[in-house]
Amino acid sequence: MAPADLATLVTKARGGDPRAVARLITLVESGDPRLPELAGLLAPYAGDAQVIGLTGSPGVGKSTTVSALVTALRAAGRRVGVLAVDPSSPFTGGAILGDRVRMQEHATDPGVYIRSMSNRGHLGGLAAATPQAVRVLAAAGCEVILVETVGVGQAEVEVASLADTTLVLLAPGMGDAIQAVKAGILEIGDIFVINKADRDGADATYRDIQGMIGLAERAPGQWRPKVLRTVAAKGEGIDEVVAAIDRHQTWLREHGEWRRRRELRAAAEVEHIVVSGLRAEARQLGGGTRLSELAARVAAGELDPYTAAAQVRDALRGETPS
Amino acid sequence: MAPADLATLVTKARGGDPRAVARLITLVESGDPRLPELAGLLAPYAGDAQVIGLTGSPGVGKSTTVSALVTALRAAGRRVGVLAVDPSSPFTGGAILGDRVRMQEHATDPGVYIRSMSNRGHLGGLAAATPQAVRVLAAAGCEVILVETVGVGQAEVEVASLADTTLVLLAPGMGDAIQAVKAGILEIGDIFVINKADRDGADATYRDIQGMIGLAERAPGQWRPKVLRTVAAKGEGIDEVVAAIDRHQTWLREHGEWRRRRELRAAAEVEHIVVSGLRAEARQLGGGTRLSELAARVAAGELDPYTAAAQVRDALRGETPS
Repeated sequence: MAPADLATLVTKARGGDPRAVARLITLVESGDPRLPELAGLLAPYAGDAQVIGLTGSPGVGKSTTVSALVTALRAAGRRVGVLAVDPSSPFTGGAILGDRVRMQEHATDPGVYIRSMSNRGHLGGLAAATPQAVRVLAAAGCEVILVETVGVGQAEVEVASLADTTLVLLAPGMGDAIQAVKAGILEIGDIFVINKADRDGADATYRDIQGMIGLAERAPGQWRPKVLRTVAAKGEGIDEVVAAIDRHQTWLREHGEWRRRRELRAAAEVEHIVVSGLRAEARQLGGGTRLSELAARVAAGELDPYTAAAQVRDALRGETPS
Repeated sequence: MAPADLATLVTKARGGDPRAVARLITLVESGDPRLPELAGLLAPYAGDAQVIGLTGSPGVGKSTTVSALVTALRAAGRRVGVLAVDPSSPFTGGAILGDRVRMQEHATDPGVYIRSMSNRGHLGGLAAATPQAVRVLAAAGCEVILVETVGVGQAEVEVASLADTTLVLLAPGMGDAIQAVKAGILEIGDIFVINKADRDGADATYRDIQGMIGLAERAPGQWRPKVLRTVAAKGEGIDEVVAAIDRHQTWLREHGEWRRRRELRAAAEVEHIVVSGLRAEARQLGGGTRLSELAARVAAGELDPYTAAAQVRDALRGETPS
């Protein structure tokens, strides 16, 4: 697309043109050099969209649940965006989208935008791209934006830092409660959804999670995580999940958390852009502060990494000739 | 401990005093302000230790395999260090060490140091602490250092960037080969170990992994990952794993990769220290470039994140009064 088209694309996306939305998200995902300009155009549309994070281990039924949630939200007349983020494969060029097939029932609904995003080879890329993709969807008029991540661990923490409400999906027999604690998900879930609740072990999983929530330290007035049961493949329990999301949103607004979470995630976003830029600068330093030369001396045991880091820092500050 | 004791502690650790080793690793793990001084004392001992990364999903038998490898390495008279790193729980104060029980058979062997490390609440903390902990173990005379991580995803990538040789553990029936690709582990493994190889499905897992390795693009002269089968609980196949590790180390040295990997990881370490320091500086900026104030304006849609980031960058450079 021609460089001058950004403002036109944003205007078209505002008008609900799905191709304009798709092109803007591709631009964001690929780390296009015009991202700062695009960010300026999108800034006013940071918006009031509800951002819902959804995470869980492979096999718990994330795609099925997201699809069922989209159906319920559309039935209520709400415009929906879905970002399926796959941070677990930083090396390959694209996310594996086999299970995205389940989303195809929404493909022809003009009130739904569905998009997968992968890392495209640069670590930390998704952390920068996802907030901008959320802004594109908000600008396009999405009232609810579901951000689904694959995998366990660090990725969840980033979902939690992005979302207003974080849903953690579990399934019976997918690993005991200890594993949930290990993965750190107990601390990030606002709502726990035990999917495949018609299977053996669902009650035990429910009790385990309720028990751990009961044991967790919580300041007075803090949100107590909800635990719900669904059979997403049959649409069972999905309306209750939507209701719990809406109750959490009301709670966020009544407790000043709505604004606070948005400010925290804006701070994280700004910090991420600063750090990425500085990292790129550090790699381009010349002369004696060249990172590769310093690293060779550290590897040889001639220099310690903190002294090397101080030299890089001084060079970034412009205090030594490069 | 008294501030003046660092040099003494390093001397004691050099002499093999296990308490000195433990105290130094605690100091590293806790992000002690004297880390730069300690790094200076440890720099000469970057050493020739073989650093072996070991990763895999929960349930594949990582602890059992590490314990069996330690037994085999000790039988060969080699001094061994084990770091069990748990990056998956950034919020809780300590790693869950239930399965560390298996390591206790080595607890009284003076030729083995075993240590768990957790995130201690600060994200990215382990990325900084682990290389220093490896240096402490190298200084204490460990010839082989096994770094075990729990979890899947980003953590593996960091293990791979730290290790000379990365072992990926799999088990039959723990998820199909597609999951392995999803988790990005195919790209980081130098040696794949199918543990619990006496179980159903081991042959299928072996064929799947061999097939995917065969399909992967590989430059001429590049290492072709090995696939081995073990029953770690019975010690079966462990000698073959040790032999494969040693063959990989020989290959690394013969192909200039030994030095190259060490330099790359030193560069990553230096960069990490630089970035952490800058991040801390950015958070302490005052006046109009205060991150929280900029973030509030971004959240309100008055400012875009790239413009905010440029203001922070200028302040870090010292170009605007703070």
